[in-house]
Amino acid sequence: MNGAEAFVGTLKACGVEVCFANPGTSEMQLVGAIDKQDGMRAILGLFEGVVTGAADGYGRMADKPAVTLLHLGPGLGNGLANLHNARRAASPVINMVGDHATYHLHYDAPLTSDAAGVARPMSDWVRVSKSERDLAQAGAEAFAVAQSYPGKIATVVVPADHAWTEGSAIVAPQLAAAPAKAPAEAIEAAAAALRDGTGPKALFLGGRALREDALVQAGRIAAATGARIVCETFAARLHRGAGRVPVERLPYFGEQAAAFLADLETIVFCGCEPPVSFFAYPGKPSWLSPEGANLVRLASLREDAPAALTGLADALGAPSQPANVQQSASFPADDADKLAPAGVGAVLSALIPENAIISDEGATAGLAIFGMTAGAKAHDWLMLTGGAIGQGLPLAVGAAVACPDRKVLALQADGGGMYTPQALWTMAREKLDVVTVILNNGSYAILNIELMRVGVQNPGPKALSMLDLRNPSLDWCSLSEGMGVPAERATTVGEFRKALAGALAAKGPRLIEAMI
Amino acid sequence: MNGAEAFVGTLKACGVEVCFANPGTSEMQLVGAIDKQDGMRAILGLFEGVVTGAADGYGRMADKPAVTLLHLGPGLGNGLANLHNARRAASPVINMVGDHATYHLHYDAPLTSDAAGVARPMSDWVRVSKSERDLAQAGAEAFAVAQSYPGKIATVVVPADHAWTEGSAIVAPQLAAAPAKAPAEAIEAAAAALRDGTGPKALFLGGRALREDALVQAGRIAAATGARIVCETFAARLHRGAGRVPVERLPYFGEQAAAFLADLETIVFCGCEPPVSFFAYPGKPSWLSPEGANLVRLASLREDAPAALTGLADALGAPSQPANVQQSASFPADDADKLAPAGVGAVLSALIPENAIISDEGATAGLAIFGMTAGAKAHDWLMLTGGAIGQGLPLAVGAAVACPDRKVLALQADGGGMYTPQALWTMAREKLDVVTVILNNGSYAILNIELMRVGVQNPGPKALSMLDLRNPSLDWCSLSEGMGVPAERATTVGEFRKALAGALAAKGPRLIEAMI
Repeated sequence: MNGAEAFVGTLKACGVEVCFANPGTSEMQLVGAIDKQDGMRAILGLFEGVVTGAADGYGRMADKPAVTLLHLGPGLGNGLANLHNARRAASPVINMVGDHATYHLHYDAPLTSDAAGVARPMSDWVRVSKSERDLAQAGAEAFAVAQSYPGKIATVVVPADHAWTEGSAIVAPQLAAAPAKAPAEAIEAAAAALRDGTGPKALFLGGRALREDALVQAGRIAAATGARIVCETFAARLHRGAGRVPVERLPYFGEQAAAFLADLETIVFCGCEPPVSFFAYPGKPSWLSPEGANLVRLASLREDAPAALTGLADALGAPSQPANVQQSASFPADDADKLAPAGVGAVLSALIPENAIISDEGATAGLAIFGMTAGAKAHDWLMLTGGAIGQGLPLAVGAAVACPDRKVLALQADGGGMYTPQALWTMAREKLDVVTVILNNGSYAILNIELMRVGVQNPGPKALSMLDLRNPSLDWCSLSEGMGVPAERATTVGEFRKALAGALAAKGPRLIEAMI
Repeated sequence: MNGAEAFVGTLKACGVEVCFANPGTSEMQLVGAIDKQDGMRAILGLFEGVVTGAADGYGRMADKPAVTLLHLGPGLGNGLANLHNARRAASPVINMVGDHATYHLHYDAPLTSDAAGVARPMSDWVRVSKSERDLAQAGAEAFAVAQSYPGKIATVVVPADHAWTEGSAIVAPQLAAAPAKAPAEAIEAAAAALRDGTGPKALFLGGRALREDALVQAGRIAAATGARIVCETFAARLHRGAGRVPVERLPYFGEQAAAFLADLETIVFCGCEPPVSFFAYPGKPSWLSPEGANLVRLASLREDAPAALTGLADALGAPSQPANVQQSASFPADDADKLAPAGVGAVLSALIPENAIISDEGATAGLAIFGMTAGAKAHDWLMLTGGAIGQGLPLAVGAAVACPDRKVLALQADGGGMYTPQALWTMAREKLDVVTVILNNGSYAILNIELMRVGVQNPGPKALSMLDLRNPSLDWCSLSEGMGVPAERATTVGEFRKALAGALAAKGPRLIEAMI
């Protein structure tokens, strides 16, 4: 078999089943190999940001990697923003990036670029294949790296001649290392801090500590110690809703976040580092934890969070069950009201289906909606981990591929949605069960707030125009239908309720343009 | 003034008048500085590939740089593909890339990335500001680098605290160095080769050798020596049409290109290097010039091409005028015929307005249309220099901003158009005089050809589906109107002729979806 077949065969032997692809000429042998490989699904994206964002969504939900197929340095470049988000989510992702044949590189043909150089800033691991036989070996290594708990970004650069040369063979899968355990000393220190601390306390959770099994342990700890349970502002995947252990989300703006944490005297971190402000602002601190508080690391992002929390709960002699679980609750809203974020949140609090997956890139509106849906039916909430907008729709694609039996809801701000609208086409092509809600306020609303927060005085019309999306207004129904996804517009709470109920009752992609 | 104001003021003092922008929070001070700076136009793109592609188009037409405004490493990442094309076009471009405040970087906040590392693969020069005063100095240096003949990509990373700190000042412009002259020995060697060579000869031209002044000199040389005049397959900007010195374009596919050049015994290169195949193919040569031919470099891309050609023409004692200029010519086409690339070419050959600018990312269809429009009214033809698709619509934006009194025509293949469709919104917002023709064949047609050329045997449905854009079909009229650009669809030659004539007679953006 040729190198491409051995590479793809090795990935399949490792358990990789999905390829999100946007190939070009230098990847035609990889396309041929995927074509021949039983059990490897190929999903086309019309833009590379869709491909990498979908791989992120798939990785978050499947807890194993999909592979991307990208066209040289420029194609990889188009996928970098969502790889940045995937890396910040600690998602497992394997990238296969085609490159010119090794002997062709020195001619400096027009598409020649430093593909490994493009990969490095957003990859945890980059490997350039050395031969047609080494290519399969690189695949096995990439899988092991991508599966490093909880996940990493592994990129393999594939010269075209390694792909097409015969004489390669499938390599046996490498077992990913088991997750590292938090040290016993860390568990003891956290137990002592929570037991002995006299003032207000919190568990601060991120990464895998936000899955249901870990949250049950956190709930036991809270029952034993009175600690609050707080999560990072932008988590990869949070289990929440009725019947689950509730979690308070750290506010986005730095001064609000600092105030939120200000009275805590003990904070135990599990699955993440102490929070810092998203951006720097003149004269405002970046570090958010209160001065003088006792900050204790129970487990890092790369240590087994559920095991560490279980160990801590047991060390505290905590009760076997959490004392506090989320009650079912929804918000009322008057159908005659003009639609606003609160109306969207109220309708969602009532209509989110059991076991739904929410891809939230709702920006300013998303923060309000999150708060109102705490008591909805149990669901997964996926957030914009790296701040590179254009994640929401691709992430929904990947989540729907990973979980075909669950309803996916994409809450997408209009500004961010315009970075990767091509995801809608892939939803239509693959008949993915995704309801997209475009939160259309005609503005980069967050930047209108930030402009003042960073100290720009008296912005003129030129500055304000750079934050305004209404000249001309985007017609998302038209965009959606142009890519094959049926769409309707809602301007009142009643219209939104009816549209959402209809979309949720149907199977397959729908878009609702919520005019807020 | 703060660092941002000094930086923007320095760029303005250098002569920069346009900023293509997609800012975020860390660039708010730069937004404020642009807002205050008289004579600096701000043009918003909804995606960074639009921003960098527009800067390329502006640079090709204005022969001076615009500045881009991009949001940290991920925002720059989204712009890399079109920066790759701009670099291959040797366009002058300055990028200003915001970054976190220097003191905030070590906190590793979610959007933290290696912005300089992202910039390097697609920039000729990267500079990280060292202080609020150094930021203005970096601006002056960036302008000088960008203006290096014929143009370079200069990227400045701007930490937010340098932008907002007071105490900076505008720096005096640095004069760009004059273009290097081709050595006298190169002119003598080229003259001797053309004079003494007995077999078929050609001038092979690229870069600035394809502007009208240089082509007149090439025509003189052809008149004196009988040399053919050939240009690279993908040139940044070619002056052509009725009354101009005609140029033969090297074919795209390697074996056709080699055959095209096969009988030449002498080739003189000016403004480019000897051509190589775009991709490598198993068993086919990458080097295209015939073995044993006398290859002479008259001037490199970075040497003054018109001066070198003038020197060569004079050394040959050539007549003062070309013997051969393009006659006016157009192709007939039956209005009742179903539309195909030949029909589009025929209609364009008759309707291209005097002094129009064509942004050609027509891919397979574009190659046919190019051949048929040689005898149209005089125009500029801009090509996909780096092979990273998604250039065509953004390039048209930039060309229209640089040349508001000229009609711009974007010939855009459907597959490539989906990488940067957001350019249509900027056309609408800025009321740019661009007619976009989408060449919709529902396919990555080039890849269907390449799949066989690289030796993939008997591709199955999974492989073919990855090259097919018809499931679902894209409705470009719907997409265009969703972004504020009026659109109509043409399925026959007559419909296309009527739509194009109407769009050309109007002012402002229009889109025609040509079903080919």
